[in-house]
Amino acid sequence: MAALSPVMDVAGVEAFLRAEFPQVSDDYTVAAIGPGTATIRMEPDHRHLRPGGTISGPTMFSLADCAVYLAIIAHVGPEALAVTTGASIDFMRKPAAGKALVADVTLLKLGRGLAVGDVAITSEGVSGLVARATLTYSRPRA
Amino acid sequence: MAALSPVMDVAGVEAFLRAEFPQVSDDYTVAAIGPGTATIRMEPDHRHLRPGGTISGPTMFSLADCAVYLAIIAHVGPEALAVTTGASIDFMRKPAAGKALVADVTLLKLGRGLAVGDVAITSEGVSGLVARATLTYSRPRA
Amino acid sequence: MAALSPVMDVAGVEAFLRAEFPQVSDDYTVAAIGPGTATIRMEPDHRHLRPGGTISGPTMFSLADCAVYLAIIAHVGPEALAVTTGASIDFMRKPAAGKALVADVTLLKLGRGLAVGDVAITSEGVSGLVARATLTYSRPRA
Amino acid sequence: MAALSPVMDVAGVEAFLRAEFPQVSDDYTVAAIGPGTATIRMEPDHRHLRPGGTISGPTMFSLADCAVYLAIIAHVGPEALAVTTGASIDFMRKPAAGKALVADVTLLKLGRGLAVGDVAITSEGVSGLVARATLTYSRPRA
Repeated sequence: MAALSPVMDVAGVEAFLRAEFPQVSDDYTVAAIGPGTATIRMEPDHRHLRPGGTISGPTMFSLADCAVYLAIIAHVGPEALAVTTGASIDFMRKPAAGKALVADVTLLKLGRGLAVGDVAITSEGVSGLVARATLTYSRPRA
Repeated sequence: MAALSPVMDVAGVEAFLRAEFPQVSDDYTVAAIGPGTATIRMEPDHRHLRPGGTISGPTMFSLADCAVYLAIIAHVGPEALAVTTGASIDFMRKPAAGKALVADVTLLKLGRGLAVGDVAITSEGVSGLVARATLTYSRPRA
Repeated sequence: MAALSPVMDVAGVEAFLRAEFPQVSDDYTVAAIGPGTATIRMEPDHRHLRPGGTISGPTMFSLADCAVYLAIIAHVGPEALAVTTGASIDFMRKPAAGKALVADVTLLKLGRGLAVGDVAITSEGVSGLVARATLTYSRPRA
Repeated sequence: MAALSPVMDVAGVEAFLRAEFPQVSDDYTVAAIGPGTATIRMEPDHRHLRPGGTISGPTMFSLADCAVYLAIIAHVGPEALAVTTGASIDFMRKPAAGKALVADVTLLKLGRGLAVGDVAITSEGVSGLVARATLTYSRPRA
């Protein structure tokens, strides 16, 4: 595909995050935006824990979903709302308790109808991915 | 497969939910437990909303994940922790704002190693499924 | 959603299958078409076997993909081509060697842009599903 | 995770492929084996085509499934059979007609119970991925 170029920078995406996702914006930070990519960092707190002390799967899903959404916004601007139409996620190993999660997004497709993003989630201090996900968004027609 | 029989009833699973998932137990109710099935109901509040006023995808994922977990527990007892290893979810239509979501779980497999549950999510007043998901859990070896 | 009504019957879908999928039409039979549903039957032969004598996962994926495609065609007519945009599949237990597979499709969504179908695959003589899949198709804009 | 090291080389995996997958070994070539990775190449022929002239989704699924299987074998040896328990696949763009497909596998997990591999599929002459998939295998207990 043609090389993707972001149209918003870290500060712009961060401002969008704070305005549109107040529920999570205390936990999430926009760490980097690049051509076809975005990195979102999350500091987990007690609300995200699962029996056994690990970070819950839904917490990682939320991070993955938001991270791809922000990656799309970074490349198309704060457009009329894209909606998630499907997702798959695999959980490979336990995140370290109390450590940050880092979601690295690669946009695989940014079409007029559908956008697809792949997410690799790592946990600081853990070797290998803790989760990977792919999310598909449907973009509204102009 | 051999017919599945629950080993816990609604009250037992509800008690387990309150003890193990205090973060969500205000929102979730165990509505029914049957052979190979479970129904979990969720009353959404403002914390679950997404830009545009709809219930967020991660909220539905959380419900699906918890609902399958509870369905497994209902059939094997409150065992050492099963962990989610993978999930897929499709979002078909918008839930009605402010209405309850109902997650109907069917256990597709309850093996010694893996358990697989299928979830159909409906929104009160909306015709057709709002989401469907399949979740796989790995069960610890005795 | 509004109730779905098929616009083609078993004979019509069968004719479409023979014309458009000559590679598989010796193996597949259209067993039933109903409102929002379709049942496709497959007689496996040696080409579908995997080391160990079981029917291969890709063979079941092919059946699931074709079955949802035929279910869509049955409800919209032999339209300009829909393309698969995503799929998830879970394999729960081994099919019986040499026995027919039956794919029961339920259309979960049949929108102007996306169609989503759920498939339950059973193997004659095996209790419980051998596989389940969900497939998403993007429909071309008129 | 600990760094993965293959225990078989390209020639060894190729020999395994020819012995165990005679149905596809005319079409597939083992192009590379590395630490945690494998590259499998496929030359499509007319049997893989879909209405419209493109390579079918099931053909890409088959390639992805076989490629992850071979990547696992390359790292554990030709062991008692691992079985696919689940998969997700996204199709992003059309492969070029008549051109080779290349499947690059990265093993995300190679545990005693489960192995997870991610696959990126490219089509010669097409920019961007044509498909991505993740497959989970359950490994038999010794």
